[in-house]
Amino acid sequence: MRRVAIIGVGQSHFGELWDLSFRDIFLSAGVEALEDSGLEGKEIEAMFVGNMSSGRYLAQEHIAALIADYAGLAELNVPATRVEGADASGGLALRQAFMAVASGMHDIVIAAGVEKVTDVGSDAAMDILSSSADREWEWFVGANLPSLYAMMARMHMEKFGTGSEDLAGISIKNHRNATLNPKAQFRREISMDVALNSPFVAEPLRLFDCSPISDGAAAVILADETTAKEYTDKLVYLAACSQASDYLSLQNRTDPITMSAVVQASKIAYRQANVSPDEIDIAEIHDSFTIAELIAYEDLGFVEKGKGKEMVREGRTEISGELPVNTSGGLKACGHAIGATGIRQAVEIALQLRGDAGKRQVEAEKGLALNIGGTGATAVVSIFEVA
Amino acid sequence: MRRVAIIGVGQSHFGELWDLSFRDIFLSAGVEALEDSGLEGKEIEAMFVGNMSSGRYLAQEHIAALIADYAGLAELNVPATRVEGADASGGLALRQAFMAVASGMHDIVIAAGVEKVTDVGSDAAMDILSSSADREWEWFVGANLPSLYAMMARMHMEKFGTGSEDLAGISIKNHRNATLNPKAQFRREISMDVALNSPFVAEPLRLFDCSPISDGAAAVILADETTAKEYTDKLVYLAACSQASDYLSLQNRTDPITMSAVVQASKIAYRQANVSPDEIDIAEIHDSFTIAELIAYEDLGFVEKGKGKEMVREGRTEISGELPVNTSGGLKACGHAIGATGIRQAVEIALQLRGDAGKRQVEAEKGLALNIGGTGATAVVSIFEVA
Repeated sequence: MRRVAIIGVGQSHFGELWDLSFRDIFLSAGVEALEDSGLEGKEIEAMFVGNMSSGRYLAQEHIAALIADYAGLAELNVPATRVEGADASGGLALRQAFMAVASGMHDIVIAAGVEKVTDVGSDAAMDILSSSADREWEWFVGANLPSLYAMMARMHMEKFGTGSEDLAGISIKNHRNATLNPKAQFRREISMDVALNSPFVAEPLRLFDCSPISDGAAAVILADETTAKEYTDKLVYLAACSQASDYLSLQNRTDPITMSAVVQASKIAYRQANVSPDEIDIAEIHDSFTIAELIAYEDLGFVEKGKGKEMVREGRTEISGELPVNTSGGLKACGHAIGATGIRQAVEIALQLRGDAGKRQVEAEKGLALNIGGTGATAVVSIFEVA
Repeated sequence: MRRVAIIGVGQSHFGELWDLSFRDIFLSAGVEALEDSGLEGKEIEAMFVGNMSSGRYLAQEHIAALIADYAGLAELNVPATRVEGADASGGLALRQAFMAVASGMHDIVIAAGVEKVTDVGSDAAMDILSSSADREWEWFVGANLPSLYAMMARMHMEKFGTGSEDLAGISIKNHRNATLNPKAQFRREISMDVALNSPFVAEPLRLFDCSPISDGAAAVILADETTAKEYTDKLVYLAACSQASDYLSLQNRTDPITMSAVVQASKIAYRQANVSPDEIDIAEIHDSFTIAELIAYEDLGFVEKGKGKEMVREGRTEISGELPVNTSGGLKACGHAIGATGIRQAVEIALQLRGDAGKRQVEAEKGLALNIGGTGATAVVSIFEVA
């Protein structure tokens, strides 16, 4: 297994990109990544694209070929593969690219993620997003994604005394971070009062507990260490990129408030990267709902099970804390462009470790990203480091 | 790179499986593959699933997690990844699994493909299938898959003198082969008279030039050579599995009747497997339309460009010929369960090389499979051998 480095990153603005098409969006991210890397493009040997639902949003499948075509890679016959695991699609694309380079199959590979959601109405979008859960055993009986996460939140509250303020605290933090990120969808702060008085989406989750509907794309270029050094001195290594599965339906899990896929994927990642949770300096965590970020604090081993709320109350995951989480604004405030999110997280960690994160820059040498599909049936944990 | 062997194969019946759900279908193929291998299931380290459009057919994404769950692999946290490249999705799943084993990442991996098409009407199915082509530049102006292949057929006829009888000959051959395959959708022979008098779908392509709408699933279990020998004496090696891309839209290709992705992927595969086209004893070729099989004879290097028709006229690809093609019945008569097809082709070649192909058994030591997405923007070429 060769060491894998990130040599270029790019990201479109995240948000309701009414004036941009699917094709415009992925090109903007890809071009930025190429420019960042200094590559011309013809050095790219393979492409992996994360996307959840282009079929339903755009009536267009086969989008890896489409993107390769528009990126000028089709004339070079570059293999392009779409991977899908709901909103973990970006993480899966990163993992395929990581394996392609680590194994020695390819030297330079691009991993991208893209989703164009707003071309359908928000009812249709919610239906499509909820197809990450079990259609027959969850959605058909009325359990869409917010209601499934609401049940997890309720259980966590009853079992561990987690409060609505704790969840709101995560949202407030992520909104505050997003004010420092020019690519973020919501670049404004919210107050505890606003968060706690926002309407319920699925009780106990309120509007500000839920990530928005977003369009966006992101891209990272990976290379083996030797090749990477030809292009940049600011090497960020992808030390591990691990994946695990869990039951698709919440009802089948022994403990619905422990995401066993997250536990398992992170264990493997820590072992492969030879780091422990307390060595992680910065993390991007999949906060499709605030409760997801809180549960992840526990399942990633940053704090004991049930004590996620203490991370919030003590401000440990604030940008000024010991473990800044979601300096980008996270899914909540940077936006959640579904298939793009896993790659967007990698972009943020790479920028931070390189020292290119602008106003939101923190001191960090080791970073972690957690990308989740649906309610946790797919989890991808990536660990990044600078040395 | 380690040698990769196939240690188990399984396939559902292909056809209009009204009485079976998506979940029933993939389970039947997976269980058959496990039984064939002698594995218990818990030895499986990773799963790759090819599927084109579960989102549109079933309103269900995240199907790799769903399948892992139903296959009993979720409780083991086995990573499961869906890959999509239109009707080359199965081939892409095979390729990801091949890379995972060849690279040493995993020892035992399952590659599966599944599609449940008939839960929507045939108009909707045609719309969804045509989303493998460029939605904005082809479908919106009325060019669905049959019309795009019709243009290729017309061009081939005008440039090289290929006749309707040549195309019909491919259909007749594949129907005849399917009578010998108990899993095939259409197990009856057709005559030249019937083929040439069937209605036009898109002139010059008639009903019997087009593959049908099919449900189905297939699975193969891959292992590294050392592990494989613990499970079976009948080793079939996957010697190469290569992928290439082309422009998505037919209009952008310099030569619309040469599939450059097929040319390129096969060149790489021949080189990796260290074989030449004339050493191939048997092939499964993606005959979504008869013209696709004929063009593939040329692009795979079995015959000079423009002379595909001679392969038909001389009976060289008949089951009794020098290079039997589509002994399974092919997409035309075995059926074309979209995301399952690439894996179903691998199942057929493995059965043939093992000597387990029953009434359609031929003498063969080296086999090839070609799986195509849409009109050829994605191509996967696999080479199999017994020694």
